[in-house]
Amino acid sequence: MNETIMAAARERAAGHRRRFDLRFEAYFATLPERLDTPPLSRFTPRCLDLLRDLSLRGGKRLRVALLYEAARLVTTDPVPGLAEAALSIELLQTHGLVHDDLIDDSPRRRGGPSTYYAYRQDFPDADRTALGLAVLAGDLAAFLSMRVLLDADVPAELRRAMLEVQLDAAAETVTGQIVDLERDFLPVPDEEFLHTVCEYKSTRYSVLAPLRLGLLAAGEDLARHDARLRRYATLVGIGGQLRDDYLDLFGDDAATGKTTGADLRAGRRSYAISALLAAADASQRAEIESALGDPHSPTETVHRLRDLARHLGVDAKLRAAMHRHADAARTEARTWRPHWREDAVAFFEGLPLANVLPPE
Amino acid sequence: MNETIMAAARERAAGHRRRFDLRFEAYFATLPERLDTPPLSRFTPRCLDLLRDLSLRGGKRLRVALLYEAARLVTTDPVPGLAEAALSIELLQTHGLVHDDLIDDSPRRRGGPSTYYAYRQDFPDADRTALGLAVLAGDLAAFLSMRVLLDADVPAELRRAMLEVQLDAAAETVTGQIVDLERDFLPVPDEEFLHTVCEYKSTRYSVLAPLRLGLLAAGEDLARHDARLRRYATLVGIGGQLRDDYLDLFGDDAATGKTTGADLRAGRRSYAISALLAAADASQRAEIESALGDPHSPTETVHRLRDLARHLGVDAKLRAAMHRHADAARTEARTWRPHWREDAVAFFEGLPLANVLPPE
Repeated sequence: MNETIMAAARERAAGHRRRFDLRFEAYFATLPERLDTPPLSRFTPRCLDLLRDLSLRGGKRLRVALLYEAARLVTTDPVPGLAEAALSIELLQTHGLVHDDLIDDSPRRRGGPSTYYAYRQDFPDADRTALGLAVLAGDLAAFLSMRVLLDADVPAELRRAMLEVQLDAAAETVTGQIVDLERDFLPVPDEEFLHTVCEYKSTRYSVLAPLRLGLLAAGEDLARHDARLRRYATLVGIGGQLRDDYLDLFGDDAATGKTTGADLRAGRRSYAISALLAAADASQRAEIESALGDPHSPTETVHRLRDLARHLGVDAKLRAAMHRHADAARTEARTWRPHWREDAVAFFEGLPLANVLPPE
Repeated sequence: MNETIMAAARERAAGHRRRFDLRFEAYFATLPERLDTPPLSRFTPRCLDLLRDLSLRGGKRLRVALLYEAARLVTTDPVPGLAEAALSIELLQTHGLVHDDLIDDSPRRRGGPSTYYAYRQDFPDADRTALGLAVLAGDLAAFLSMRVLLDADVPAELRRAMLEVQLDAAAETVTGQIVDLERDFLPVPDEEFLHTVCEYKSTRYSVLAPLRLGLLAAGEDLARHDARLRRYATLVGIGGQLRDDYLDLFGDDAATGKTTGADLRAGRRSYAISALLAAADASQRAEIESALGDPHSPTETVHRLRDLARHLGVDAKLRAAMHRHADAARTEARTWRPHWREDAVAFFEGLPLANVLPPE
């Protein structure tokens, strides 16, 4: 039963992804015509190319699937505004990735160089220029993300409501990134703090905003459903964050498109690192702390700490936790049947489990 | 005659500034209630405080005066939407200053620490954290800048048009900052390139967007007046940039709120530095190049190059150029009489001269 609804959700998500990726490519193909940029500049086209490359280099487009399926909770008719909302959501994601990788000094993203590191390669002797151009590339994506919503061919009041959802989500996400940096100054952040980071840094723009945008565009009254959307979003958000943090320690580079152990080297007290610290005894904790935040921690150290984490049962604990959250999200979606369309509700039931790793 | 219209323009601008500063303070006083931020976070209030401090630490609020006076070209009635447009304009300016000072590694702004340096003081041992928080503070100001426009109590189509002006100006400004970095890789940028940088980096959001927003809010048909607005904005923009670049080399710290010689130390080929390079002979140019871009150039070196610039007539040349552009802007404004209200046209005549330094 689980396998069936998960497979169905995955297939529907893949369809949304395929259609969206073509649209995203078309967006970037015509962007130079729509954006007034300085003549004779070589740096500006390079910036657009890097934004395009990162944007098109994939990701699962889970946000896009959530958006389209939220509209299908209400109707199977074509819904004006979804195409622009999808572009806005993914451009906001590009903005976040560009700045995140600069802030974290991350070399890799989605199986390619991060924008900051692409610029560092362009300017091996001028790191300040690379830094500046990465800041600006992220800024440009942010403004483009909001700009594209203005092109939605929807009633003016709906456009206003969609912009409000996106701008509030964007601002809340920034505060989430701030509290994410704050977290790493706490010796062992407790679960409540980690959940708060996840809610603001990730859930709001990645899950809640797409749901809201899809329902809004389909004409649904958001206020009536606010509590259930929030419950679902928070559970899916935590499940997804647990998965990411798990894979950063226990996964491999090829699967994640990033470098395993990045959280450890960057000193990020993720769900995984925090659970490891909490499970460790005093001498183990000293060993973890000495590697934590050292960008030059050798791979052997990362592997030794990963083995320690396994030995302490951190991997099983995280898998159980992500499964528990996904299951609670499915239970929440199940209660949506009286309100909304069956096949889309089934998608929202299947998605949380498809979005995390199976329990061991 | 010049003195009279300049004094009148200055007085009207000062009135707009006083009224706006109270409104800006009220905006920040109520912001924490309107923005959903993570509970228990100490870093988030600190970020809002730094944005508030920088935002309220002044500036001449020339953009705000341009906005209100543009509306007065059409009517003396109160115009809904101007208050929100003014907040949006100045929040976008705050966004730009925060990121600019990070990109340029500038310690001072508006007579106080730049946001990046305030964070460096908070985190003397964690420059990466300071950098990250400065990126995020600028991002937050960007989203807040657009968000405030949604609160404008104006017809939905007008709100859409105002957002379009602001988002396009914001995106164009980013490309201007990109080409500003590009400029510093050219040995001696020519005047056309410098004008392009000025147009995209500064004129669009600082002059043209406020004019457009004010006229839009007052119900004017923008397309009919596009060419005259662009002519005026470009001339005022170049005049203002010439003044800033002049003061950076020939001014003193107290008057500018920044550190004199910052352009030289940062390797910025500003109007002043480019004019100096163009006027120098081979051996002088070598001397300039050796100081250019050296953040540790001693004050004596800056003073020696400033004296050389004076000796070569660069100061008189820049003063003449800024005066010429201001005068052309006044001539443009004079042709506005048949279209618009007399007292506001007089403001636009007086402003360009009031905005530059008198010719020597």
